[in-house]
Amino acid sequence: MIASSKLNKFVQEIQAFLKPEQVLNTDIDRYLYETDATSLFKNQAALILIPRTSQEVARIITIINKYPELNFVARGAGTGLSGGAIGDANSIIISIAKLSKLIAFDAANQMALIETGLVNETLSQLVKQTGLHFSPDPSSQAACTIGGNIAENAGGIHCYKHGVSADQILGLEVVLPSGEIIHLGQINQQACEDFDLGQEIKQIHSAKRSAIDFTRLFVGSEGTFGIATKALVRLQKIPESFLTMQVAFASAIEAAELVSAIIKAGFKPTALEMIDKGALEAVSKTFDLGIPGESNAVLLIELDGDNDEILLEAKAIKQLIKTQFKPLLYKETQDPTERQFLWKVRKGTVAAFGQIAPFWYLYDAVVPRSKIPEATAKIEAIALKYNLKLASVLHAADGNLHPNFLYDPEKDPGVVERIHKASHEIMHLCIELGGVLSGEHGIGVEKRDYMPFLFSDADMETMLKVRRVFDPKMISNPNKIFPIRVCKEC
Amino acid sequence: MIASSKLNKFVQEIQAFLKPEQVLNTDIDRYLYETDATSLFKNQAALILIPRTSQEVARIITIINKYPELNFVARGAGTGLSGGAIGDANSIIISIAKLSKLIAFDAANQMALIETGLVNETLSQLVKQTGLHFSPDPSSQAACTIGGNIAENAGGIHCYKHGVSADQILGLEVVLPSGEIIHLGQINQQACEDFDLGQEIKQIHSAKRSAIDFTRLFVGSEGTFGIATKALVRLQKIPESFLTMQVAFASAIEAAELVSAIIKAGFKPTALEMIDKGALEAVSKTFDLGIPGESNAVLLIELDGDNDEILLEAKAIKQLIKTQFKPLLYKETQDPTERQFLWKVRKGTVAAFGQIAPFWYLYDAVVPRSKIPEATAKIEAIALKYNLKLASVLHAADGNLHPNFLYDPEKDPGVVERIHKASHEIMHLCIELGGVLSGEHGIGVEKRDYMPFLFSDADMETMLKVRRVFDPKMISNPNKIFPIRVCKEC
Repeated sequence: MIASSKLNKFVQEIQAFLKPEQVLNTDIDRYLYETDATSLFKNQAALILIPRTSQEVARIITIINKYPELNFVARGAGTGLSGGAIGDANSIIISIAKLSKLIAFDAANQMALIETGLVNETLSQLVKQTGLHFSPDPSSQAACTIGGNIAENAGGIHCYKHGVSADQILGLEVVLPSGEIIHLGQINQQACEDFDLGQEIKQIHSAKRSAIDFTRLFVGSEGTFGIATKALVRLQKIPESFLTMQVAFASAIEAAELVSAIIKAGFKPTALEMIDKGALEAVSKTFDLGIPGESNAVLLIELDGDNDEILLEAKAIKQLIKTQFKPLLYKETQDPTERQFLWKVRKGTVAAFGQIAPFWYLYDAVVPRSKIPEATAKIEAIALKYNLKLASVLHAADGNLHPNFLYDPEKDPGVVERIHKASHEIMHLCIELGGVLSGEHGIGVEKRDYMPFLFSDADMETMLKVRRVFDPKMISNPNKIFPIRVCKEC
Repeated sequence: MIASSKLNKFVQEIQAFLKPEQVLNTDIDRYLYETDATSLFKNQAALILIPRTSQEVARIITIINKYPELNFVARGAGTGLSGGAIGDANSIIISIAKLSKLIAFDAANQMALIETGLVNETLSQLVKQTGLHFSPDPSSQAACTIGGNIAENAGGIHCYKHGVSADQILGLEVVLPSGEIIHLGQINQQACEDFDLGQEIKQIHSAKRSAIDFTRLFVGSEGTFGIATKALVRLQKIPESFLTMQVAFASAIEAAELVSAIIKAGFKPTALEMIDKGALEAVSKTFDLGIPGESNAVLLIELDGDNDEILLEAKAIKQLIKTQFKPLLYKETQDPTERQFLWKVRKGTVAAFGQIAPFWYLYDAVVPRSKIPEATAKIEAIALKYNLKLASVLHAADGNLHPNFLYDPEKDPGVVERIHKASHEIMHLCIELGGVLSGEHGIGVEKRDYMPFLFSDADMETMLKVRRVFDPKMISNPNKIFPIRVCKEC
C-alpha cells in the first residue's frame, strides 16, 4: 500500500491542474466508490479523481506513471456486475462521469461522436428528434455510461436483433496507460480536433473498416488497455412499432424449444426473454399476472420494425406456436399500456426478489441456444444441492442465462459460501455444454479464476502479451480478467 | 535472397513429412503463384507448399523458424485484390487449398466448424439442405477460400444487410508464426479434438463472447498474425424470397441521394448497388439493357426475407421514389429470370470492360455514404485530369466505391503510371471526405504506402507492437499493410 506521504505528494501534483471538487479524498468518498452493482466485491481505492477532458485524463495518468506503487481504474456509473470498476488500496479511480458531452452527431450516416461518460439513455434522448437511438439496452441504461458499456461489451434485452455494444462502436479515442492519446478505428486526431472547434453537427468519419480492427479488440477489454475517452458510435433507427407476445408453458423445456423453433424458422424477434418458475413465483407475490397457476415458464417475444411487417411476422409465429406447441396461455398486444404490463413479469422480477429475500446474486452464464433446456434443468439441480433459492431470467435467443440466487446471510450464515460453490459448478456446467464464461457482464474480479476452465495457458499468455502492448507496467485496472496467479508470473 | 543450397536443405527437411505433390518447386510453379487477381503486383516466391492438416502447417512453420532468411505467406485461392497473398524471393507460400473440410455443422445454433481452405460457395452448398448458408458474397465466391475472406475481411454485394466476413467468424484455430497452435474466440483445443474423432454433426461451442475478443482482431489482419487453419463460422438463413428494383437516373447525384433517403427511412435492403455512366456504357456495348439513353446512373435495390414483408417494403420504397425523386425508369421483379437480367448490368460490367480495353484496374475506396455524390464527381474529375477511362460500380449503402480504370498499356505506354497517380489522388480525396483506405479488399501491398494518410506514427506503432506479439520475427506475410519504412525502423 502506498505510503500516505507519497499519496499526499501525488495529490499535490494533481491539485496543480484539477479543481478541489475534482479530487475526492475523504473516507466517505472511498466508501462510496468501494463497490459496483454486485455488492459481493468490495475494496477501497486510494483516491477518486473526476477529470473533465481527455487531456486531464492523460495528465493524471502521466503523473501516475511517476509513482510505481500506483495503478488506476476507470469508472463510469459503477453499475457493472463483475467487480470491474473496483480498485484497491493503491488505485486511483478515474471517473469518466464528467466527460459526458455529445460532441456531434451525423444523422445521414447514423452516428455520433461522444465523450464516453455520456449516459446510455441520455444519448438516445439527445438524438431522439432524428428518429435514431443508441440501441444497446442493459437494464442499467438510465444510469450506465457508454464508456462502461464499451469496457464490458454490454448487451441487453434487445441485443439479439440489434447487436451488443461492440457492434455499435466504430472508433475510439483512448488514453493509453503511458498517458499518450491514440485513436482506433474510424476516428483520428484530426476528426476529434475539428469537433473541439465547437461545431454541433458535422460529417463524421465512416467506413466499413480500415486495416487491423483495434476498436473491436478494445471493446470488452474491461479497462485493462487504457481509458476510452471519446467514441464514434453507431445510431440505429427507433423502431416504428412494437408487438409483444406472452406465452406461458407448463415446462421450461417446451419454452426453450419454442425459442429454437422461432430462430430456426428465420424470425428475428428483438427480444426473446424467458422467465422461470422461481422468478414467476417472486413476481406473483406482487402482481396478479393472470398467468395459469401451473405455468412453469413464460416466454416474452417482442417484434419491432415496420408495423405491417411485424403484424405478418406475429401471425406466422402464432401459427407456429399453435401447430407445434401446447402453451397454457397466449397473449399479444401492441397497446403501450398492455405491453408495459406484459413486461412487468420480466422487469418486475428483480424488484419482486425483495419480497422473498433481502439480497440477490445475479449470475451471467452462457450456453449454446440448443442447450438451454439441459442447462436449465441442471442449474435447478445445483440450486437444490446447495439449498439455494433460485429464480432465473434468460436472454434466450443468445443462450444467455441469468440465474439469481436470493439469500439472507443473517438467517443463513453459510449461504454466501454455498453461492460461490454453486457458481463454480454452474461455470463448469456451461463450459461442458459448449458455453463460455460471460454473456454481457464481463469477467472482472468475479470470474477471473474461471478463465482456465475455457482458455489454455498459451491462450491466456497471448492475451496478456497483447495487453502488455497497451499496458506494459500492468497499471490499467490490474488484477481483472486474468487469474492473479498468471499475472504475478508474467 | 536465400542461397539455393540452404533452400535445398529446407526442402529436404520438408520432404521428410510432405509428399512430393505437396511441394511445388519448379519455375512454372513459381510463375503460377506470382500474383493474385490484381495482376498489377508480381513477385516470385522461393517455394510453394500444400499442407493437408493444421499439424503439417505447424511443422512447416517450425522448420521455417530455423532459417532466418525465410518468411511465409498464407495463400487461399489467390483471388485477392491488394497483393496480400504474393511472396518474395525468400517466401515460402503455404497454400491452405487442401485444408478444405467442412468438419461439422450445427443447424440449431446456425454455425459450422470448417478448415479455412474451404471455398466460400462450397460451404453454402454443403449446408444447403439445412436452409442455411454462409452469407458473405465477394464476386469471387465460387473460387475464394474462407481463409482468404478472413484474412481480408471480405465483403460483397449483400453485406450491408447481412454483414461482412468479420461478422460471421466466431472462433479460430491459428498456427502462430512460432509454429504453436492457439485458439481464439469461441472454440478451444478440446472442441477441435472432439471433431477429429469424425462426428458429422455435433454441438459446437457458442456464445455472445468471452473475455478479450481476439477473433475480431485476427480477422482482417491479412496474414500478418499467423495462419488461421480452422474457423467456427456463423451460418445465416437463406432468404425465402427476393425482390429486385432497377432505377435509372439522369444524374449520379440523384441516385446517391436515393440511397441516403432509403437508409434514412430505416429500410434495410440486402443490396444497394450503383452503376455509373462509364460502366453503363461498357455493358450497353454487349447487352440491350432497355435503359433510357440519357441515363447516367442505375441503382439496383434488392430486398430479401419473408415474401409478404418484402412486398410491403418494396411498396413503401416505390412510394418514396415516386414522391421525392424523378427516375427515368423504374422496374421491379420477383421473377428469377428477370431478376438475373436486372443484375446483368452489374454482373456483366467486368466482362463488358473487355469490349473497351484489354486491362482494367479495380480500385477499392470508401467515403461516408452522404459524401458519395461529391466523391463521384471528384473521381470523374481525377480520371479526366489523367486522361483515364473510368467505369464505376458502388456498394452504395456502405459508401464503398469501386472505380475501375480501363486501359491498354500497348496503345498508351504511360497509362500504368497515370493510374498510380490517380489512385494516389483518390486516396487523398477519400480520407479528406472522412473515408478510409479500404472497404473490403485489404491494404496488402497496394495501399501500404497510404497508411500514413490515415494513421499517425503512434497509431501504426501500436498496430506493429500488437503484430509483434503474434509475430516477433516479422516472418508472417512481411511487408504487407505497413509502409516498409516503418517496418524497417522497428
